[in-house]
Amino acid sequence: MFMFEKPDGMRDILPGLYQTMKETRISLTELIEQWGYQFVETPTLEFYDTVGVQSAILDQQLFKLLDQKGQTLVLRPDMTGPIARIAAANLDKHHPLRIGYAANVFRAQEQEGGRPAEFEQVGVELIGDGSTSADAEVIALVIFSLKKAGLSTFKISVGHVGIADALFMEILGNQKRVRVLQRFLYDKNYVGFREHVKSLSLSTIDQQRLLKLLNLKGGIEICDEAKAIIGSEVGKNAIQQLETLWETLVDYGCAEDVTIDLSMVRHMSYYNGILFEIYAENIGFPIGNGGRYDELLNRFNFNAPATGFGIRLDRLLEALKLNDVQPKIDAVIFSTEQREEAIKFAEKERRQGKKVVLQDLAGIKNIDQMTKSFQKVTYFIGSRKEKRHG
Amino acid sequence: MFMFEKPDGMRDILPGLYQTMKETRISLTELIEQWGYQFVETPTLEFYDTVGVQSAILDQQLFKLLDQKGQTLVLRPDMTGPIARIAAANLDKHHPLRIGYAANVFRAQEQEGGRPAEFEQVGVELIGDGSTSADAEVIALVIFSLKKAGLSTFKISVGHVGIADALFMEILGNQKRVRVLQRFLYDKNYVGFREHVKSLSLSTIDQQRLLKLLNLKGGIEICDEAKAIIGSEVGKNAIQQLETLWETLVDYGCAEDVTIDLSMVRHMSYYNGILFEIYAENIGFPIGNGGRYDELLNRFNFNAPATGFGIRLDRLLEALKLNDVQPKIDAVIFSTEQREEAIKFAEKERRQGKKVVLQDLAGIKNIDQMTKSFQKVTYFIGSRKEKRHG
Repeated sequence: MFMFEKPDGMRDILPGLYQTMKETRISLTELIEQWGYQFVETPTLEFYDTVGVQSAILDQQLFKLLDQKGQTLVLRPDMTGPIARIAAANLDKHHPLRIGYAANVFRAQEQEGGRPAEFEQVGVELIGDGSTSADAEVIALVIFSLKKAGLSTFKISVGHVGIADALFMEILGNQKRVRVLQRFLYDKNYVGFREHVKSLSLSTIDQQRLLKLLNLKGGIEICDEAKAIIGSEVGKNAIQQLETLWETLVDYGCAEDVTIDLSMVRHMSYYNGILFEIYAENIGFPIGNGGRYDELLNRFNFNAPATGFGIRLDRLLEALKLNDVQPKIDAVIFSTEQREEAIKFAEKERRQGKKVVLQDLAGIKNIDQMTKSFQKVTYFIGSRKEKRHG
Repeated sequence: MFMFEKPDGMRDILPGLYQTMKETRISLTELIEQWGYQFVETPTLEFYDTVGVQSAILDQQLFKLLDQKGQTLVLRPDMTGPIARIAAANLDKHHPLRIGYAANVFRAQEQEGGRPAEFEQVGVELIGDGSTSADAEVIALVIFSLKKAGLSTFKISVGHVGIADALFMEILGNQKRVRVLQRFLYDKNYVGFREHVKSLSLSTIDQQRLLKLLNLKGGIEICDEAKAIIGSEVGKNAIQQLETLWETLVDYGCAEDVTIDLSMVRHMSYYNGILFEIYAENIGFPIGNGGRYDELLNRFNFNAPATGFGIRLDRLLEALKLNDVQPKIDAVIFSTEQREEAIKFAEKERRQGKKVVLQDLAGIKNIDQMTKSFQKVTYFIGSRKEKRHG
């Protein structure tokens, strides 16, 4: 093994990217704070039996280790579980909690050279508010955040877990058959979905109702089309929630950034209502997602509805196509005779907000190589002060 | 296991502490950037065979796990190794590198309820500059940083690995006997040190020379006292470096924050020259430390001298005795009829820099409990707008 190798999926963030990430992170978190969200940090390690088991991440994607008592720990695979845990254990439960985070999460990858195994998410959880206004708030906050970060071309796909569920249940009658169809949609395998629907012994009308679902993508008019194929109360309620959501997003002035997509389903996830994915131009994966998860907190003995989102900072940066920020740094180079003057000069410059490296000539091998990366170079060398701009 | 348990040594950082930590972190990192340091982030997981083995942390304190190929990984126990790795692999080696970081590090703890197993360090590495000015720069930067963060009562204990080493070698003649004495000093077991010295078959003069070392604590005058008991060139060179360091710190205006302590030694660490520890009033452990480590980068195939420091953010906060920052947040509570007006009002307030929660009345169970934690509450309820200041 070479000494400079890193584990699969792990990466270094060097100064240029670090600065770009920092600026984008601040852009998001400042807005989230202005919307009254308060930030927390949770441990990198959690118990497998609490956060690990409750996460929506596949078991083989968890990084696991044993503690000194032989208990299984995981590197947190997402922030929703940890925040559910602290909300249940620590926080005032009398009113809706608005929690923000900017944190690295971990997903073990099976193949080399593949996806990152550690990446940063910026997100929120809005806990204790079951109203559709809460769903609208987190979607509007995503939209306002992305715009503030400088993303101009993106789309939020919004669905409702209850709509496909209701339609499938009305027609297929049992959970096992429902799950087969859900899986096709989750995998976005629409060809497979069509073939499977056609293989089912259903009336032509019911087959058409199922196939119709794939085309229910668009604006508010989609809700009317959905009403035509869904009969159950639970299904109609879900459609009504989407309509209220849309009206609220109109009030926020951001409905035009949203596409309703009724083929969105849950799979292995804790979402149980409105859910959404964030797509940016030319990025093959969602740069973030979110939704309502009213059951998760129950598992932490805290009976409260909740919704939230997480944005992947690495994918957002890819979408933003920002160049690395190159900091402007000056250098002051001194020899011992003028050390005191050089220190004073550097301090004065720093107090004016400049970034200044103070460098003893004795510590440099190649002065030309050293100075060429700086914006301005000032010399305090020998018995007389010389000033030169590099 | 209760659902809200965390692994030993792991902790949550709730909103008040989060904000205090954030402000203190920014206070440190802004200054570090002004001194021309550039920040990096490294992966949480590293190979045991690279960063794990090279760290100065005891093996039983490493969190270890296996990756999917059966290779041993560690949660980074410090940042010096990872930064040495990236400096060797990625960075321009033509001139001194000034690298900063603010990162969590991990140390497995053997006992429950003990020390934190994950904590944040803010620090720097100055790589490629072997001059004593580099040692002085990192010590001055520690001092300026702590003062900027608001710490008024602290002391930097500065020693030099080469001084005790030289004295012990002059008198004892072999490394094995030297190491026994080093260990007493490292453990700060001065009683044991005295007893051991007296048990050695040495001349009274040599015993006095060894015991004298314990009293060599103070200002620049300590260097003259040290010259009287140390004869070797290597020892005298080390004293000369401390003298130059002191003069440079006088030029920085911060020698009064430093105490020379010649009983400071290395043990199991990579330090090989000037080293230091940061002590704050009423805190039992150093809140940070640092020093020169000219050999470490060699192990990463990069032949370069280096020095640096790390400040433990949790201990600094303890020393600062700051109260948790309570954010000032306003609330806007609306019912559906006035939703649009409420959204517009909240947006206007946020644009003026205020933090504003926008809350649908339908999402609240107890309006009095909800409103009492906010600074100002504005209602948009029913058909008529009412405004009330809470």
